[in-house]
Amino acid sequence: MLNESINAIIDSGMKYLIADLQKLIRQPSISAKNEGMNDCARLVAQLMENAGLQTELLTLDKQGDNKKKDIPPVVFGEVRSKAHPNSKTLLFYNHYDVQPVEPVELWKEDPFSGKVKGDRIYGRGSTDDKGELITRVKAVEFLLKKYGDLPCNIKFVVEGEEEIGSVHIRKYLLKYKHKFASDNVIWEFGYVDSSGRPIISLGMKGLLYVELVAKGPFRDVHSSLAVLIENPAWRLVQALSSLRSKNGKILIEDWYKEVQQFTREELELVSNEPFDEQEFREQYGQEKFVNNIRGNETKKALVGMPTCNIAGLISGYTGKGPKTILPSTALAKLDFRLVPDMDPKTQFNRLKTHLERNGFGDLIEIGFIHGERPYRTPIGNPMLTLVKDSAAEAFGTNPIISISSSGTGPMHSFATILSAPCVSVGSTYIFSRMHSPNEFARIDLLNKATKCMANIIERFGSVRK
Amino acid sequence: MLNESINAIIDSGMKYLIADLQKLIRQPSISAKNEGMNDCARLVAQLMENAGLQTELLTLDKQGDNKKKDIPPVVFGEVRSKAHPNSKTLLFYNHYDVQPVEPVELWKEDPFSGKVKGDRIYGRGSTDDKGELITRVKAVEFLLKKYGDLPCNIKFVVEGEEEIGSVHIRKYLLKYKHKFASDNVIWEFGYVDSSGRPIISLGMKGLLYVELVAKGPFRDVHSSLAVLIENPAWRLVQALSSLRSKNGKILIEDWYKEVQQFTREELELVSNEPFDEQEFREQYGQEKFVNNIRGNETKKALVGMPTCNIAGLISGYTGKGPKTILPSTALAKLDFRLVPDMDPKTQFNRLKTHLERNGFGDLIEIGFIHGERPYRTPIGNPMLTLVKDSAAEAFGTNPIISISSSGTGPMHSFATILSAPCVSVGSTYIFSRMHSPNEFARIDLLNKATKCMANIIERFGSVRK
Repeated sequence: MLNESINAIIDSGMKYLIADLQKLIRQPSISAKNEGMNDCARLVAQLMENAGLQTELLTLDKQGDNKKKDIPPVVFGEVRSKAHPNSKTLLFYNHYDVQPVEPVELWKEDPFSGKVKGDRIYGRGSTDDKGELITRVKAVEFLLKKYGDLPCNIKFVVEGEEEIGSVHIRKYLLKYKHKFASDNVIWEFGYVDSSGRPIISLGMKGLLYVELVAKGPFRDVHSSLAVLIENPAWRLVQALSSLRSKNGKILIEDWYKEVQQFTREELELVSNEPFDEQEFREQYGQEKFVNNIRGNETKKALVGMPTCNIAGLISGYTGKGPKTILPSTALAKLDFRLVPDMDPKTQFNRLKTHLERNGFGDLIEIGFIHGERPYRTPIGNPMLTLVKDSAAEAFGTNPIISISSSGTGPMHSFATILSAPCVSVGSTYIFSRMHSPNEFARIDLLNKATKCMANIIERFGSVRK
Repeated sequence: MLNESINAIIDSGMKYLIADLQKLIRQPSISAKNEGMNDCARLVAQLMENAGLQTELLTLDKQGDNKKKDIPPVVFGEVRSKAHPNSKTLLFYNHYDVQPVEPVELWKEDPFSGKVKGDRIYGRGSTDDKGELITRVKAVEFLLKKYGDLPCNIKFVVEGEEEIGSVHIRKYLLKYKHKFASDNVIWEFGYVDSSGRPIISLGMKGLLYVELVAKGPFRDVHSSLAVLIENPAWRLVQALSSLRSKNGKILIEDWYKEVQQFTREELELVSNEPFDEQEFREQYGQEKFVNNIRGNETKKALVGMPTCNIAGLISGYTGKGPKTILPSTALAKLDFRLVPDMDPKTQFNRLKTHLERNGFGDLIEIGFIHGERPYRTPIGNPMLTLVKDSAAEAFGTNPIISISSSGTGPMHSFATILSAPCVSVGSTYIFSRMHSPNEFARIDLLNKATKCMANIIERFGSVRK
């Protein structure tokens, strides 16, 4: 073993990596429905123990019992370097929860099958985030097998609420600030584009998630009464249509007030990002984009444009056939992506004021579901070079540097509470159907990502405090 | 028996009427889902045979087999007067199908329980229309028991598609025009207001039912892509908000072009209709009405105002928790009520043109679900006086005359194909939760309605050709 290169060890260990990923996929862990969370946390801890990490299931309350509030535990894992116990510490942030599987009828296999077909493993979480997690656990396992030690200290923080907006990670970070103490964070996900180039991302958008509920008559009533009774679905439609123009502009007063303009350096990085519009359009069946944007504008939008999105809409009768009712309620789920320096609570208050001014104040009574602040690690951070070199070697091609992902995560909390700059490393195929039916992971990329993680740990170990 | 008054016979026969109504309620017959239709048709025929009617299950195709198209049979029933075989013929039009039961969680009892609590029988169809049907069948049964004959010819046409817009009744009427031949039609339903006054109605609104479907990406995708990919829920909201103003006005060009203005005589009847705004508001939990209308305007609206109603709306994730997706489709179900002389096909074409002009032409590709023309029997028809006197006697109070119900039915087809003026007679409590959870029938009104139907048959028998 000691004579083999780490890459050769990883190659010959892929069958174990796949088998462990299948175990993870086969254990449902849907945070939105609180399904299987504790079982999955225990499974993650077990796989990490097998890899050589010391693990703990952490909870928020003193009794070590999160059950009252149904808060999933955080799986914490640690390996201290024997040779260099005072070396720097690298923290891997991941999550074991997955998105709901609906619409379930569009899945070709059981969403929890973990079925391997050719170079793909199918199932909810195969990419997001169980696929990412397993490459990191295995990188540690294979390095420990080869050397019997690591060149630096490694920590894992694996949470169970990422898909519902990491609602308690900030509290976990504050409570376990010393346990989690580290110098840098490798973020939970990162994409590889369709040309096989890994994307290194330095930031994440923020999020404001709200529900608008319009209430009508006590119960659904016969629709002939629509001459007199106001239909809550109409009120919801009117409220929604006041929020956003056809070209995607958010019409709420002061919505863009704190949006930072790109610096010249940032703009250069954005312009250098390759983005295959044609490929992207084909993947998603789109003839054109919102507001007909093209070229560099699409890249700027992905990195830095705030959005107002309807994630869900329901009212009245939605079954087969023509039922003639006037519904008693109408619900919309909205997610707003935020960019630096927008603050979710400020934006929520602006939304609230907008609705009140337009006569829809009642729709947002209990509307604030979740907020997450946006964050960007500065371009000059030395971790960027280290990660870039590691990825270039593992993937055999120059990585792309992005100043921000278009997605959202609690990067702001990690970066500020731990004072540890965060970097996201390209690992998984960008069109893996994350959050959609038939999600899959590419086995070739699981292999390369594992090598990349091993490279990062080795390089990180050579940087002394 | 012969010495007893018909009212006494009806009073002592109520237990059988209730038992038979329970049998009907306990047999589901949801036309929108094609559930239990043939079983219910056979049950109706059996109850009618028991009452002394000759019955047939009629179908549209030559083989007597509607199964290929899942078209429910029409139950036809007939009694010819032995003493006066050439007398006039009165046709009772009813339906044995019911609305879907959703939202099922709001029912306090099984929707098909037929449970009696106090003066109420609960269950889907208890009022609409199984409750109405049973009063008519029993009126015939009790009259035959008393006299061994009827003073006129009676026919029943009981269809199975009323709740899905009577989609084939026109074809049935055309095919069985001679079998159904009659001089007058008693319509399938009629209300009694909260003061116990029966409402006699001479007309019905028409209906246009459409579905709008907006299509987005091939599948639901991560909502971070909302910066580029147009959300079909937004397109649907935009299309919907272009159809109707906040005050209920339909904004489609020429929508009101053929709307007949009320004559002075009609307007007088409308003004004379009692309408307890306060009671109505409390029943439906409304502080005010659409466009803040009050007084006589509310009556005019119920009788003669066209509407555009959202009956259903669905898109994306509507479960628990904050799922961040951009949905692949968005669907709206719309029903437009029409008044004389609006034509559903003309109105559909206007809607289509409106959507096309506004860039939403793709939303209505297969949108026409159902159309029904509006109709009003002229005020001067002699049947009105006969029905009014019969109802006054049975209910012990002066009926209210309405020139049109706010609801929809195939009255236009019956009236024109059979050349038989149609009248709707107040029978069931106006707040019986038709189409809603916990629908019920009031037993006192089932009793009075049966007496009213017996009166109508007796009076109709005294009018010779």
